[in-house]
Amino acid sequence: MTSNHELFSKLTPENISQFSKQLNASFLFDLIAFIEKSPPKMKFLIFKNLREEKAVSVFEYLSFGIQKEILGKLPSERVASLLNALSPDDRTALLEELPPHLMHLLLKYLSPEERALSIRLLGYPENSVGRLMTPDYLAIRVDWTVKEVLDYIRRYGHESETVNVIYAVDEKGKLVDDFRIKQFLFASLDTKAEDLADHKFISLNVNDNEENAINLFRKYARIALPVVDAEGLMLGIVTIDDIMNASVAKDTEDIQKIGGTLAFKETYLQIPILKLMRKRSGWLVVLFLGELLTASAMGFFQDELSKAVVLALFLPLIISSGGNAGSQASALLIRALALEEVQLRDWWRVVRREIFSGVFLGCVLGTIGFFRIIIWSLVFSMYGMHWLLVAFTVCFALIGVVLWGTLAGATLPLLLKWCGFDPAVSSAPFVATLVDVTGIIIYFSVAMLILRGTLL
Amino acid sequence: MTSNHELFSKLTPENISQFSKQLNASFLFDLIAFIEKSPPKMKFLIFKNLREEKAVSVFEYLSFGIQKEILGKLPSERVASLLNALSPDDRTALLEELPPHLMHLLLKYLSPEERALSIRLLGYPENSVGRLMTPDYLAIRVDWTVKEVLDYIRRYGHESETVNVIYAVDEKGKLVDDFRIKQFLFASLDTKAEDLADHKFISLNVNDNEENAINLFRKYARIALPVVDAEGLMLGIVTIDDIMNASVAKDTEDIQKIGGTLAFKETYLQIPILKLMRKRSGWLVVLFLGELLTASAMGFFQDELSKAVVLALFLPLIISSGGNAGSQASALLIRALALEEVQLRDWWRVVRREIFSGVFLGCVLGTIGFFRIIIWSLVFSMYGMHWLLVAFTVCFALIGVVLWGTLAGATLPLLLKWCGFDPAVSSAPFVATLVDVTGIIIYFSVAMLILRGTLL
Repeated sequence: MTSNHELFSKLTPENISQFSKQLNASFLFDLIAFIEKSPPKMKFLIFKNLREEKAVSVFEYLSFGIQKEILGKLPSERVASLLNALSPDDRTALLEELPPHLMHLLLKYLSPEERALSIRLLGYPENSVGRLMTPDYLAIRVDWTVKEVLDYIRRYGHESETVNVIYAVDEKGKLVDDFRIKQFLFASLDTKAEDLADHKFISLNVNDNEENAINLFRKYARIALPVVDAEGLMLGIVTIDDIMNASVAKDTEDIQKIGGTLAFKETYLQIPILKLMRKRSGWLVVLFLGELLTASAMGFFQDELSKAVVLALFLPLIISSGGNAGSQASALLIRALALEEVQLRDWWRVVRREIFSGVFLGCVLGTIGFFRIIIWSLVFSMYGMHWLLVAFTVCFALIGVVLWGTLAGATLPLLLKWCGFDPAVSSAPFVATLVDVTGIIIYFSVAMLILRGTLL
Repeated sequence: MTSNHELFSKLTPENISQFSKQLNASFLFDLIAFIEKSPPKMKFLIFKNLREEKAVSVFEYLSFGIQKEILGKLPSERVASLLNALSPDDRTALLEELPPHLMHLLLKYLSPEERALSIRLLGYPENSVGRLMTPDYLAIRVDWTVKEVLDYIRRYGHESETVNVIYAVDEKGKLVDDFRIKQFLFASLDTKAEDLADHKFISLNVNDNEENAINLFRKYARIALPVVDAEGLMLGIVTIDDIMNASVAKDTEDIQKIGGTLAFKETYLQIPILKLMRKRSGWLVVLFLGELLTASAMGFFQDELSKAVVLALFLPLIISSGGNAGSQASALLIRALALEEVQLRDWWRVVRREIFSGVFLGCVLGTIGFFRIIIWSLVFSMYGMHWLLVAFTVCFALIGVVLWGTLAGATLPLLLKWCGFDPAVSSAPFVATLVDVTGIIIYFSVAMLILRGTLL
């Protein structure tokens, strides 16, 4: 494989056409890695020098950003051949990444059949199984013999996305069973498929969402699953490679949201900086507007503050502890909901757990805070004459704020899911902001209760 | 499939043995779902009534928690037969979940060969490819004909984890090529495997970590990859189902860490509440100890605070904005590092992006904050006579804190990775805590610069 790298290091825009033969013979994934690192002009030149077949294989594995870049530069007949040769699921994924006008432009390049197919796949809602499926699968009848099945695979297997799983449909096109290729390989040639059938299968509905599909694949450890409509008619299959990509993309999106960024599909280094700014400033501004309420809440307690400046000293400590406890709870619940480990009907079990957690964690932090103030007061004579009352105030405020933080962090994802929104929106910063505002109110309320008549 | 549910609804601990025949005939995944929901006693009774073969299939798909539960209740000869029948990779995954004394107890139940295999697999570092691999694969020689290969598959394919990919090794056991089953299905029977070979293959090293393996599977869209040692000797294969599970588990761990919890493997509802408390309080206490520094930092500026209580009003706003900006940056970088979209050598590009982002986002928030103070001052006559200076203080402090937050959030994951730690440790709460302490210092430093001679 070293020879490939030697070849690549020699390539320049000027000499590339001389090397087109070696380029076409080079190892697919080395070539892809090289294209990904090349400047735009070079990407285009490499593509120009590839045989159509090789170009398609390479193109399929490139990221959306680079695919778009290349489509924009290639002559239109090349674009057409590339698009027509792409597998329907990959093409759908690419088309839906494009701005609508560009998508419709590219649809025109497709042959009538491929266009009809793409439009059909694009007709399914985004993030639905319909978008992930490919209609290239192998379907047999149960009354065929193993020999007939193997002949059929030899004849039509090239066009199928996988030969590892074979499906049996009835005369109406209804899915009746699934087989693994090894069932046919292990059986004698005159066995009927019927004799190998167990008529038990797992299938996806075309309108299921991606998340359901991912969880089904995980649960049943499959490499492909059939897709049916409401009547059980077989429409296509979804393969594990697309599920793996969807799963990783979904987790990336969740992590971006948990971090408080609007989700985006480009990689961190590829996304144009201005787009990244838009994605980040969106939530950040919303959160900032929420945080502005802390200034209002603080203004409300301005009198108390000027009487007891010592209260301000522990303010960041208290509101941040609530925010941290809330971030924990929301991250745990967002993930548990995504993996379907927690269902909406479990809400009471969650609330019970989080009340317990909140009280426990609050007491732990409250106790540490209490002794921190006691010790500093005794050793450094800080925090004035009412230090013991201040210590109690901080301790009880911490219990209240942490309990409130965990409850808010845990229930918000459930609430969002119940309303039909994505639970991941209840990001760590979102929960922290919510808890900041209410934390101030809790803190000063506790202070007014404990310190009335002394400091306040 | 409805009949299964009818059957399950009729089952009671008393009558279950009468239904053992139907139980053994019921659809695997319905049965699994039923077992998962059953109380511990019922789980054990169901297992007692299953044929060994069926019991193994069911057992393989249960979660670790339930597997442990069942192993603890079954008679030891049943435990032995279950463990011996599990596939080596699933068994390794189960064993490494157990406390060491239990693991060694169970190892004793294994047959000498299976025990040797398990010990070998367990000998590879946790999260290494060695732990994920199974030695059950099909290996052929390139001088075999297609007919010989197919006969071999028919004979030995049952013991292999997959027949979808077949590997060619030389006489020393060195991996020389990989084939897909369809290559043999499409070729005529007297073709030599050599003629179908391209001698290009992707392989994993047995010491690679899980993350590398996950990214390779995604990049090359494979359903299985061979595992070799440093000399290229073939040791086993890793299949996509295990990779999918590892990928989801890794993402769960990352999300837990990003939320500020120590990672755990049980589901949210299954983990014992005290264990969950330990996982959560660990980080929360560390963060709290960090947050205590805010009290010290605030104590340092106590004089300024009592002179200008108005400064306290914007304190939560300023430190939280820094924390939010930092959470965004750290979540983005943690994910980009996990997907290998960003490498350590890209650090300067990251820093450049984040300086730009920080200044931009800081200016956006600073401007909003500035006008918020101006408007409230003019409309409600709040914030005293020096409101304009206060507005400038808040504006510049925001720019400084947000810039610092994004920089810290983005560079911490890189720094952790560089030191050989998991970048996900730089969780949102961790970054927020760091930024809280430094944010206070930035805020009061800006205030002392701008307000000296007026308020301070």
